[in-house]
Amino acid sequence: PETKLPRVGTTIFTQMSALAQAHQAINLSQGFPDFDGPEALLARVDHYIRQGANQYAPMSGVPSLCAAIAAKVERCYGRTVDAAAEVTVTSGATEALFAAISAVVRPGDEVIVFDPAYDSYDPAITLNGGHAVHLQLAPPSFAIDWDAVARAITPQTRMIILNTPHNPTGETLTAADMQALSELVAGSDILLLADEVYEHIVFDGAEHQSINRYPALAERSFVVSSFGKTYHTTGWKIGYCVAPAPLTAELRKIHQYLTFSTSTPMQLALADYLNADPEHDQVLPAFYQAKRDRFNAHMADSRFSFTPAAGTYFQVMDYSAISDLPDTEFVLWLIEHAGVAAIPLSVFCQQPPEMKLVRFCFAKNEITLDQAAERLCKI
Amino acid sequence: PETKLPRVGTTIFTQMSALAQAHQAINLSQGFPDFDGPEALLARVDHYIRQGANQYAPMSGVPSLCAAIAAKVERCYGRTVDAAAEVTVTSGATEALFAAISAVVRPGDEVIVFDPAYDSYDPAITLNGGHAVHLQLAPPSFAIDWDAVARAITPQTRMIILNTPHNPTGETLTAADMQALSELVAGSDILLLADEVYEHIVFDGAEHQSINRYPALAERSFVVSSFGKTYHTTGWKIGYCVAPAPLTAELRKIHQYLTFSTSTPMQLALADYLNADPEHDQVLPAFYQAKRDRFNAHMADSRFSFTPAAGTYFQVMDYSAISDLPDTEFVLWLIEHAGVAAIPLSVFCQQPPEMKLVRFCFAKNEITLDQAAERLCKI
Ligand SMILES: CSCCC(=O)C(=O)O
Ligand SMILES: CSCCC(=O)C(=O)O
Repeated sequence: PETKLPRVGTTIFTQMSALAQAHQAINLSQGFPDFDGPEALLARVDHYIRQGANQYAPMSGVPSLCAAIAAKVERCYGRTVDAAAEVTVTSGATEALFAAISAVVRPGDEVIVFDPAYDSYDPAITLNGGHAVHLQLAPPSFAIDWDAVARAITPQTRMIILNTPHNPTGETLTAADMQALSELVAGSDILLLADEVYEHIVFDGAEHQSINRYPALAERSFVVSSFGKTYHTTGWKIGYCVAPAPLTAELRKIHQYLTFSTSTPMQLALADYLNADPEHDQVLPAFYQAKRDRFNAHMADSRFSFTPAAGTYFQVMDYSAISDLPDTEFVLWLIEHAGVAAIPLSVFCQQPPEMKLVRFCFAKNEITLDQAAERLCKI
Repeated sequence: PETKLPRVGTTIFTQMSALAQAHQAINLSQGFPDFDGPEALLARVDHYIRQGANQYAPMSGVPSLCAAIAAKVERCYGRTVDAAAEVTVTSGATEALFAAISAVVRPGDEVIVFDPAYDSYDPAITLNGGHAVHLQLAPPSFAIDWDAVARAITPQTRMIILNTPHNPTGETLTAADMQALSELVAGSDILLLADEVYEHIVFDGAEHQSINRYPALAERSFVVSSFGKTYHTTGWKIGYCVAPAPLTAELRKIHQYLTFSTSTPMQLALADYLNADPEHDQVLPAFYQAKRDRFNAHMADSRFSFTPAAGTYFQVMDYSAISDLPDTEFVLWLIEHAGVAAIPLSVFCQQPPEMKLVRFCFAKNEITLDQAAERLCKI
């Protein structure tokens, strides 16, 4: 049959994790921890399964989890949200992103995305008949060129997709970025979709620039996050979207036909844990910063060059001192010759600029990080 | 903002379950059991959570679950399927339906659906720019008029959506239906999407007419099912789609951006349970038939009239001896005056024919069924 997404293959994450397994390489490609979430959270799923909480959750999420999310947004960012009308629990942030795009992007609409961009944005836009306008974030800083954004805006611009902390680069938006964005969209109808799944993984004392902190932006935004990254449970696939009631109403129209609802016992478990240990979020930056610093300290002895990630659990490294191969070939070479799997950056770009960059995931135990760095130092 | 799905509100299931709760009515509306799944299954989730199986599952499903699904399709329907290339695990059957439609329906394509139709089909078609062609199943038999189907087919017909056992009517397709369908699509490019989530709930000794039994149909079909109905765990939201490799490849392109993957510990738990107790499917018809018969025996004393459901855990009843109200108003009246929540049938039809029918869910404990029937006999 003819194909709806002709340019789409299997995601790079699936490809690289499969290759890593086949070569028994250390897998620093797909982003997931090799350690577990808090015991108090893990134990709670069985508690609810045994209580019989095994039937459909309410479509928009179990009330206790929606309330816990609202409390967290208030606590972390000072934004008051209505748990019933402005919070929707989804099957991972991926579903929230797809639902938000499907809720508002109409045939012919333009959506501005910044490359390198997480790989799900473009297909979601395309499937809805929209047109993704790709603007390049230029290495090494990967900063947004706000003048270029201003020039890219047309009457068809429906939405801008932001992602901070940024996957795959590990960069973060600054208060100045938020100021520039505010000026840019003021008085327009442009909507924002903010992918903030790494919201609690920000380093060196910086503050996460959540849309939730900026009322004038929040009123036109879908703010998406997830529990997978924060609680080391990427396989539970529970995400959420916070948006003003009218946007939430449109999002839910889609969500109710995409998945309808999400795992009841896991939602209840997360609600309890959020209420019991709201401090977990606060210890996460130091936890991951130690991992970043340990990995990078080892890697200082390698032929890779890098500046430390500002956020996320990814470290981008330049391999131009090692190889002339394009990054998609270098990662294959790296699996074979170093036994370490990484993610090439060019796959996140529609038109990759000249760059010799790969992404390593450092959400790993110390021993994994040490072994990987040792191997990478040998090449 | 303008709305992408102007005719869509909150699903009837969400509305009625909320009303049932507000009125403390017995909830026979939204379809879910008020009893739990097998102990051996429930226990297995914690087992895997404690083993650390909390990170992303492979995009297409955990291999052991895909293999168990393939084995089950072979065992139940004699169809050999390739677990790696033809089975995809999704976040409920709802996601599988949305992904299958999104995978192949292009702007301008027509999709034939039979009314009353499950409420997610039409919005999924619409969001993909397709046109849903609604054909009416006429009460009381709700049989498909295959001549009408033949007349409805045009060069734009991309897909026909089947649902057997049928929600909301409780009817099932027969071998003669499958024969008529086979003749109709032979030599055409028309694809089929079969919603078979009630595959194991078929009564009175009848055999479920799965597409999986018919190779000439299976080669052009997405066959969707789920574990929620079979294992009394509707809130776990694990479904799947079986389709030939080229169709599966297109489906996965969508799935990987809709949700990417589905709860790892629950998938592993289901795989173990499927392997350990393949007989569970076989006891399900008698289990639910006893509930149907118990409820209907009581209801014989009421002013409702009905013919027993052939499948599903839903019983449709005619209330024309009780009220002249349209069904959407009758269900409100019923909550208030009988304290029982039901689902009106007209909401599943684009142009409802003259009918005074409501749907009761009998996936309930005997005491719940007895109390509901007692209340319904009083009005
Ligand atoms: C959904 S699998 C990809 C995980 C991830 O976000 C990443 O590795 O970038
Ligand atoms: C997804 S909620 C609806 C459950 C159901 O399939 C029904 O009640 O018909």
